[in-house]
Amino acid sequence: MPASPIRKLVPYAEAAKQRGVHVYHLNIGQPDIESPKEALEALHNFDQPLVEYSHSAGFESYRAGLAAAYNALNIPVSKNEIIVTTGGSEALMFGFMACLEPGDEIIVPEPFYANYIAFAMSAGANIVPVPSSIETGFALPPIAEFEKRITPRTRAILICNPGNPTGYLYTREELETLSKLVREHDLWLFSDEVYREFCYDGRKHISVMEFPEMAQHTIMVDSVSKRYSLCGVRIGCFATKNKEVYNTILKFAQARLSPPSLGQIVSEAALKAPQSYFDNVVEEYTARRNFAVEALNSIPGVICPNPGGAFYAMVQLPVENAEEFCIWMLSEFSHSGATVMMAPAAGFYSTPGIGLNQVRIAYVLNKDDLQAAVECLRYGLVAYAESKEKEKAIG
Amino acid sequence: MPASPIRKLVPYAEAAKQRGVHVYHLNIGQPDIESPKEALEALHNFDQPLVEYSHSAGFESYRAGLAAAYNALNIPVSKNEIIVTTGGSEALMFGFMACLEPGDEIIVPEPFYANYIAFAMSAGANIVPVPSSIETGFALPPIAEFEKRITPRTRAILICNPGNPTGYLYTREELETLSKLVREHDLWLFSDEVYREFCYDGRKHISVMEFPEMAQHTIMVDSVSKRYSLCGVRIGCFATKNKEVYNTILKFAQARLSPPSLGQIVSEAALKAPQSYFDNVVEEYTARRNFAVEALNSIPGVICPNPGGAFYAMVQLPVENAEEFCIWMLSEFSHSGATVMMAPAAGFYSTPGIGLNQVRIAYVLNKDDLQAAVECLRYGLVAYAESKEKEKAIG
Repeated sequence: MPASPIRKLVPYAEAAKQRGVHVYHLNIGQPDIESPKEALEALHNFDQPLVEYSHSAGFESYRAGLAAAYNALNIPVSKNEIIVTTGGSEALMFGFMACLEPGDEIIVPEPFYANYIAFAMSAGANIVPVPSSIETGFALPPIAEFEKRITPRTRAILICNPGNPTGYLYTREELETLSKLVREHDLWLFSDEVYREFCYDGRKHISVMEFPEMAQHTIMVDSVSKRYSLCGVRIGCFATKNKEVYNTILKFAQARLSPPSLGQIVSEAALKAPQSYFDNVVEEYTARRNFAVEALNSIPGVICPNPGGAFYAMVQLPVENAEEFCIWMLSEFSHSGATVMMAPAAGFYSTPGIGLNQVRIAYVLNKDDLQAAVECLRYGLVAYAESKEKEKAIG
Repeated sequence: MPASPIRKLVPYAEAAKQRGVHVYHLNIGQPDIESPKEALEALHNFDQPLVEYSHSAGFESYRAGLAAAYNALNIPVSKNEIIVTTGGSEALMFGFMACLEPGDEIIVPEPFYANYIAFAMSAGANIVPVPSSIETGFALPPIAEFEKRITPRTRAILICNPGNPTGYLYTREELETLSKLVREHDLWLFSDEVYREFCYDGRKHISVMEFPEMAQHTIMVDSVSKRYSLCGVRIGCFATKNKEVYNTILKFAQARLSPPSLGQIVSEAALKAPQSYFDNVVEEYTARRNFAVEALNSIPGVICPNPGGAFYAMVQLPVENAEEFCIWMLSEFSHSGATVMMAPAAGFYSTPGIGLNQVRIAYVLNKDDLQAAVECLRYGLVAYAESKEKEKAIG
């Protein structure tokens, strides 16, 4: 099992806190935005005498609500093409188990969400990375790069749109190019769309599920974790118009009995959140992103592309080894009694030696904290460079 | 993937309901007893503005509460030897994935919970059944029968105590005999104890976790689903004193981020339920069991051993094919506008051709409904025999 990109840092962060240093957490995608009040009210109003299993595919009423919400987004799925899962994690795991055999290969633009490797391992499949680059803001790599990696064992392509860790939002043209490739080689397209609502600058999320010609090839993965700040309810889902895949995944779903009932009740109620809820969220994240990207790029030697979606940004630092720097920030440094924790980006690359000078930040702090965190980073980089110089002088 | 023992019957039950026939559900382990009020109050009192992930091993406070509860039962585990899981299902799946390699074999007394096969398949492992018999009330099979089945690929023994579907409660002697075998052959012992609180006739549940010499061999699996009628919260856990197994399972737990937070809050509150809650539950189930076992055995040709725990009973019927009979009961029969749905037992056996004339019933109905359900069965058996005679006469 691969380790999470931040696991190694956790003890250093704990030690920092014990020394009384405040740690700004830019390292984890746990949003701080409040959940829709409709969602939490559903908990307070729960009036059953016990908590029963739901249908293995999820409550029918919730699936119907999801289908209606997707239809409003031009995603033509019915409640019988959706299975509610225990987080997006389970949806991906079931999807891999249903579509892939041991030894099969999944091509994934790199950097990617580190847990994809664990989910692929569960199915005995291997992830084949296609590098995307910070210079292009992590746009879809040229299609020739995908083609180069297609072997007789290639069965699927997996994208995350908007991306974790890149925040990159694919354009219609990119998705069309990719879809053509998928059809030409008769592959599956796994589309992780859990950040769908977080798109900025007036841009709209485009789902591959909108393309009728992709209906039999696409497995869409979704989750309420980020959308409504409901990470802890562990409710996701997948949607596919491919009946065979659906039926296979349903069998896996039946073996684990039922997704969490309480989480479904909360998630179904969250569907009633008004558009203004998302408008406010997007406004808040846009302001944070604008601030963070500008502030980071103002630090000498730092490069941070402007992400079009999600709440992550990849940041290139003027250091050789970002993991070493992140540990140093937690163990050796503080500025006004505080420091900052970031996710070293090497853990999001499966190609060894790439991304060593990058970190991922999640702008899930309010603007004041974000400002203080970026200031920590600014002063930290200077102090780190000085300490490196000193080491060299002594060495 | 194996099908659930009742999956095939579901459309017949739905059709019966559409014809206006009431269906008594003796087929599924969804208890009807109310959850402790402490548990549901915790939901109503939830006052966070959003629902965060918990620690991947589960909230520390909940694990501490579980450890204290286990200690009170003479099970000496600490909070750092417990990982909270998404139902008992996930605990077993993670346990198999951590301890078994593809091709490994797990010996399981038969009949057994049908989903064990699916969990074993997830780890690429195979279940090797050891038949237990309705004549002995499904007592532990002779140890020689286990030994006969041990091969170089045998890695584990799995028991369910008290048993689903048998309701059999193992004695201390049986557990000691089994433990000796496990140690002699250096195997794992998976102990599914989710029905622990449901023991009757003044008998006490004994956990293999109580045996110090088994500490490094045992993985205990637990769940709140049945204990507190909280099936839908999807909270289970496992406990092991084996550090290596613990650390491996923790990695799987980290890959799926967190068990359901709301379910943990409810389950932690349920720990505050007073002893009287269980006393009442055991009293109720004892009365139902006593009634059901006596009433069933009073039907000519029916054999139903008296189970010492859980809320299931295996019943031998005077029919050749219990599945065919169960379908007939749903599609052709009604008595006073009602019929009964039971689980054909063949699905709980992996040895082909065994248990064909048995069903599993779950006594999760109140006594009036249970009485009506048994009456349906009584009349149904007579009518079925008559219809069979008629068939023969015509044929």
